[in-house]
Amino acid sequence: MPHDIPHLLGILVATLVATKLLGELAQRIGQPAVLGELLAGVLLGASLLGILQPDDPVIHAFSEIGVLVLLFEIGLHTDLRSLLGVGSAAATVGLVGVVVPFALGTGAAHLMGLPAIPAIVCGAALTATSIGISARVLSDLGQLETREGQVVLGAAVLDDVVGLIILSVVSALASGVSVSAMGVGISTAAAVGFIVAALVIGGRIAPPLFRAAVHLEAEGSLGVLALAFAFFMAWLAAKADSASIIGAFAAGLVLHRTPQREAIESKVTTLGHFFVPIFFAAVGAAVDVRTLADPHVALVGGALIVVALVGKFVAGYAPWWFHGSKTLVGVAMIPRGEVGLIFAQMGLATGALDVSLFSAIAVMVMVTTFIPPPILSHLSRRRPAASPRLSGVAEEGIDDLVVGGE
Amino acid sequence: MPHDIPHLLGILVATLVATKLLGELAQRIGQPAVLGELLAGVLLGASLLGILQPDDPVIHAFSEIGVLVLLFEIGLHTDLRSLLGVGSAAATVGLVGVVVPFALGTGAAHLMGLPAIPAIVCGAALTATSIGISARVLSDLGQLETREGQVVLGAAVLDDVVGLIILSVVSALASGVSVSAMGVGISTAAAVGFIVAALVIGGRIAPPLFRAAVHLEAEGSLGVLALAFAFFMAWLAAKADSASIIGAFAAGLVLHRTPQREAIESKVTTLGHFFVPIFFAAVGAAVDVRTLADPHVALVGGALIVVALVGKFVAGYAPWWFHGSKTLVGVAMIPRGEVGLIFAQMGLATGALDVSLFSAIAVMVMVTTFIPPPILSHLSRRRPAASPRLSGVAEEGIDDLVVGGE
Repeated sequence: MPHDIPHLLGILVATLVATKLLGELAQRIGQPAVLGELLAGVLLGASLLGILQPDDPVIHAFSEIGVLVLLFEIGLHTDLRSLLGVGSAAATVGLVGVVVPFALGTGAAHLMGLPAIPAIVCGAALTATSIGISARVLSDLGQLETREGQVVLGAAVLDDVVGLIILSVVSALASGVSVSAMGVGISTAAAVGFIVAALVIGGRIAPPLFRAAVHLEAEGSLGVLALAFAFFMAWLAAKADSASIIGAFAAGLVLHRTPQREAIESKVTTLGHFFVPIFFAAVGAAVDVRTLADPHVALVGGALIVVALVGKFVAGYAPWWFHGSKTLVGVAMIPRGEVGLIFAQMGLATGALDVSLFSAIAVMVMVTTFIPPPILSHLSRRRPAASPRLSGVAEEGIDDLVVGGE
Repeated sequence: MPHDIPHLLGILVATLVATKLLGELAQRIGQPAVLGELLAGVLLGASLLGILQPDDPVIHAFSEIGVLVLLFEIGLHTDLRSLLGVGSAAATVGLVGVVVPFALGTGAAHLMGLPAIPAIVCGAALTATSIGISARVLSDLGQLETREGQVVLGAAVLDDVVGLIILSVVSALASGVSVSAMGVGISTAAAVGFIVAALVIGGRIAPPLFRAAVHLEAEGSLGVLALAFAFFMAWLAAKADSASIIGAFAAGLVLHRTPQREAIESKVTTLGHFFVPIFFAAVGAAVDVRTLADPHVALVGGALIVVALVGKFVAGYAPWWFHGSKTLVGVAMIPRGEVGLIFAQMGLATGALDVSLFSAIAVMVMVTTFIPPPILSHLSRRRPAASPRLSGVAEEGIDDLVVGGE
């Protein structure tokens, strides 16, 4: 037997139950579920209970599929056209919110003695606001359809896209390509080129394919073929020396425009409920809590947290012409999440980060996720709720994202 | 990196697309989708294209999860009480349909020179009618709610249960326990005891647990926790020296009685659409088509096919008091499927079967699945359709089973 299946089943039961229960607990105390899932992973991981080994081949495969399903879901929910409608304020917040944390984070990490590549990975992990967490918190507070809410969502989508492009550049650098303007240029061109090519070519090929798939008699074909399409694009992206998650995200963007989107979303979401928590738990399990007692690690982690808070908050004030609560926008941009963790995990996998730096980034992600909800709740109590709690978001949980007033 | 993820993605894309397309093709020519999925596996497998390696650790894990999800689904659809209502005719057809093929198959294999254990595995692989295939074919012909249809369904459920019990006995024998009346008795008692204990204890514990799970805020919790419950029962069954699929089946039987059954079914079915074809494809991929050219293998395979056809057909005539088409019942009992393949795969994994015997059994399963649909279609053209095509079965495809007039 190539793998001890009962042993694997035991690990899966522990992981699924722990992530669901701690995720639920987090939501009950007003925090997003992803925090509970991360903590479940930390608990089950090597440094505490030792049940979940993120480098076991099968767990690693489940977790990688989890992150691909997650990015596919984010892509499915992202409407590039409605993003354009949100306008220049969102673009400004998004871009400033990428550049400032990236520059400050890389600079701070470098000042504290880190070499160039790890410092760049640290900076990059600070760039992307979590669309999932921000959308869910704003919706819970009835602020999703305010102008501030729309700006935050537009900016979060933009910085996810930019973050993913940075990821594929950084991942090329981290796997040993030397840091040169030329190398960065080529990697950026490859990532942007891949997304553009995927949208243009995929946008022509996918709609007729999925129109045909609807006529398949076997129920379930549509969801499975959509997933196969996402895996295919992820495979293509990897072959094109870009990041496989870029491919999954691009697959989602392409299928967002097909009439079959809702049917596909519902199937992919169900698969995501199974696979995505395994990704977050595996990320949590890779955290070594013992390294956080090291003063140097604690110092780097503390500096990253400060930069993470300041960098996104100032981005809220960047569109000086915007009439609305810049404070609310700045605070709502703070939560990092999926993409920050993906950076950290990629850094660990390629050896660019050691486990202590990885743990410092994971803690930064958790702290930036803890802080905004109570502040946003306080800020929005002084304002009328512009929209009812979105049932779609509320029902579908934190893994399901709503973007641009869909 | 513990596993080459892009390589895995390529394999998954090939497997998912090939199983869906060949499954669809099979349905279009009036055959069940599972046949297409098996053939897709044979095509992708070691002896032809060499893309799908069923003993790769990750593929093996996916395929094992696939068979657990499938048995969990079958359990969820099985109503033990309505089975009792179908009465003595179904019980007689079911039991005769287990005993005759088992005795004839073991005897024939032994006569042809096989040692005791492989001969017993061959006989055991003939015992279980595929509920999925039989229910789907009868429903397509409008015969599912006739008295004949009900008898076939009741008998198929019964012989699945008996087949699973035989499986756990045979799997204990195959892993080296010596063949003694004592050993068989203990294994039978363990399997029956496990199912009874699971039903009694699980029947008390599960309903309050899943009533509580409904109140969880995070959507998707119910389906994931149900799956975790199935994995937990499978793990328990393995620890109790029974077969893990017995545990997954028992978990389904227990949850069948909860008010949350439909919600759970819908989630598990979606996961099944992804995982179950990987199981069938992996079974197909393990077939070495070259061994079928060996005259001895062809002879054993031919004998198994004859025994498989005759053994189930005579079972249809066993309830002499039954007023209805005994021919229709006998033919409808012929298709083997999931459980036969599970036997064959277990025999291969434990070393009780070599790859040529395994391939002979897989071919027997395919042939018994090919033959009945045209005959049943011919028989039922001479009879009025008693029921419209069941939309539930028709919509949900071959992996979704309807039992006892639910």
